[in-house]
Amino acid sequence: MLKVAFLEPVQELILQVEERMLSQAEGAHQQLALAMDHLLSSGGKRMRVALTLLTGEMLGGDRETLVTLAAALEMLHTATLVHDDLIDGSLIRRGIPTLNAQWSAPATVLTGDFIFARAAKLAADVSLVPVMQLFAQTLATIVNGELTQLFGRRGMMGREEYYQRIYAKTASLFETAALSAAMVSASSPDVLAKTKFYGNEIGMAFQIVDDILDFTGDQESVGKPVASDLRQGIITLPTLFYLEKSPQDEVLEAILNGKPVIGENLEALINAIRYSGAVEQAMESANDHIHRALESLASFPDNPAQRGLEELARYVVQRSK
Amino acid sequence: MLKVAFLEPVQELILQVEERMLSQAEGAHQQLALAMDHLLSSGGKRMRVALTLLTGEMLGGDRETLVTLAAALEMLHTATLVHDDLIDGSLIRRGIPTLNAQWSAPATVLTGDFIFARAAKLAADVSLVPVMQLFAQTLATIVNGELTQLFGRRGMMGREEYYQRIYAKTASLFETAALSAAMVSASSPDVLAKTKFYGNEIGMAFQIVDDILDFTGDQESVGKPVASDLRQGIITLPTLFYLEKSPQDEVLEAILNGKPVIGENLEALINAIRYSGAVEQAMESANDHIHRALESLASFPDNPAQRGLEELARYVVQRSK
Repeated sequence: MLKVAFLEPVQELILQVEERMLSQAEGAHQQLALAMDHLLSSGGKRMRVALTLLTGEMLGGDRETLVTLAAALEMLHTATLVHDDLIDGSLIRRGIPTLNAQWSAPATVLTGDFIFARAAKLAADVSLVPVMQLFAQTLATIVNGELTQLFGRRGMMGREEYYQRIYAKTASLFETAALSAAMVSASSPDVLAKTKFYGNEIGMAFQIVDDILDFTGDQESVGKPVASDLRQGIITLPTLFYLEKSPQDEVLEAILNGKPVIGENLEALINAIRYSGAVEQAMESANDHIHRALESLASFPDNPAQRGLEELARYVVQRSK
Repeated sequence: MLKVAFLEPVQELILQVEERMLSQAEGAHQQLALAMDHLLSSGGKRMRVALTLLTGEMLGGDRETLVTLAAALEMLHTATLVHDDLIDGSLIRRGIPTLNAQWSAPATVLTGDFIFARAAKLAADVSLVPVMQLFAQTLATIVNGELTQLFGRRGMMGREEYYQRIYAKTASLFETAALSAAMVSASSPDVLAKTKFYGNEIGMAFQIVDDILDFTGDQESVGKPVASDLRQGIITLPTLFYLEKSPQDEVLEAILNGKPVIGENLEALINAIRYSGAVEQAMESANDHIHRALESLASFPDNPAQRGLEELARYVVQRSK
């Protein structure tokens, strides 16, 4: 578990969420239980867990219910990662070999399915039909986004399309985490709207920063080559800003037209984007999202969990991996 | 849609279920919507739909709710088939090319996931938390069964293990269909117990008959070679009964020990099983399940839907594909 300040108000609850997740392997085939242990222990930043717990804790929600909800959301996230890694053929995630790297594709598909089933069971255990509906809707949004990217032509993409993609990929689940935590805490329509807004803004900023780190992070700490998206023909915000400044760049034009570009030309383009100011511009955009998120928090009770959400918002744009 | 007598009392509702399923592709990427159309129109016998609707109709349940529930269950079933076909590498199901035969593995994984998401949304729309929990539990049972088979050694298996396998694979969803239809119809504990029992018995018989047809069906109508299970080292009820009569069969012993057997030896064994009386013995076992299912129906109101369930039970052991 990451040691960061925003987790302090919910440290104890996070341990309960991790226990709850691990207990979902009970009754499963031994190999499957081992795989789930491996997957659920690898941890990562537990951003969605923290977001759920802090939002609910800020609003005085029932802790037992919040633990169940957070476990459901984190397991949904884990299941989508298992299938993603299979689809991308990724062998490493968070510095740890993926399931996919060690298992056959059939076992990986089914393990993802089993974790979906367990996530659905936990969401049902929250005992609130609208939460269950939101949960199912979010899964549909995430998967539809992945399919759209899979079928979509590589290359040219406008800013609108980029925002739609990162909403489906990341912000939708952050939004659902915050909103559903407010829903189980029996919040007013105004509070629901504000927590939903907060979750969405945090999620958008989180993905923009991920896309920035893809350009600026060092290969070792990110675990993949610099500009891995662009290398696959995927256009993210720094590239979109660079394009606005340099619409005549011929190498980028080739990529936008779906032509494969490799070697010196590609490395030169990546460096051009890195040092064009486009990265800073993308960072400004992420900061805008975070400012709006912080504003939406202002009317909430001033308690440790609310301050945790403030710190979480700041962490999203300050993290380096 | 199959034209059989037991469907008559719910003919109109089945059309509504099919419409409801097709409408789940709305808002999805066009390619995904086309794939869902293809999958959901291929039809098959709609056994789980009929079982859900007839049970609910017999008990006077709300029709709109029953349509939603039946669509949820059939889509859950469809999603598991999509991932199954990918895992088995099957290219044909119900005489129609599988998604897997036409699409990439990533698109097939994600399409299955999207159908899971839509099934979960429909189950949530039923607005009954225990139904949602049952639904999630059943998905976990099915997937855990598949993983157990995947990891399990081929070959030797006792009768108990066989029954556990076919419960996970088939009877669990039949049981859930009947039980959840009774749950949404606000039934008494006694009625819940009897409908659950009925669904389970029908499901066990259905899978035993499937396993019998694997031996007796002609290749063309079943769509795979005779004894396709045994060819893969999977032991089903006819083989288990044959083994009790002929414990010394050396070819079967080799298969039970996980050794690959092909050619004349295998064909001779398949014929020996077909004509040993083991198939008839397995059929007796299926009939026992059906008799128990019919007995459990006796105390229910004598109405067209109840008679539909009687006919459905008889159809399970009379069908030839």
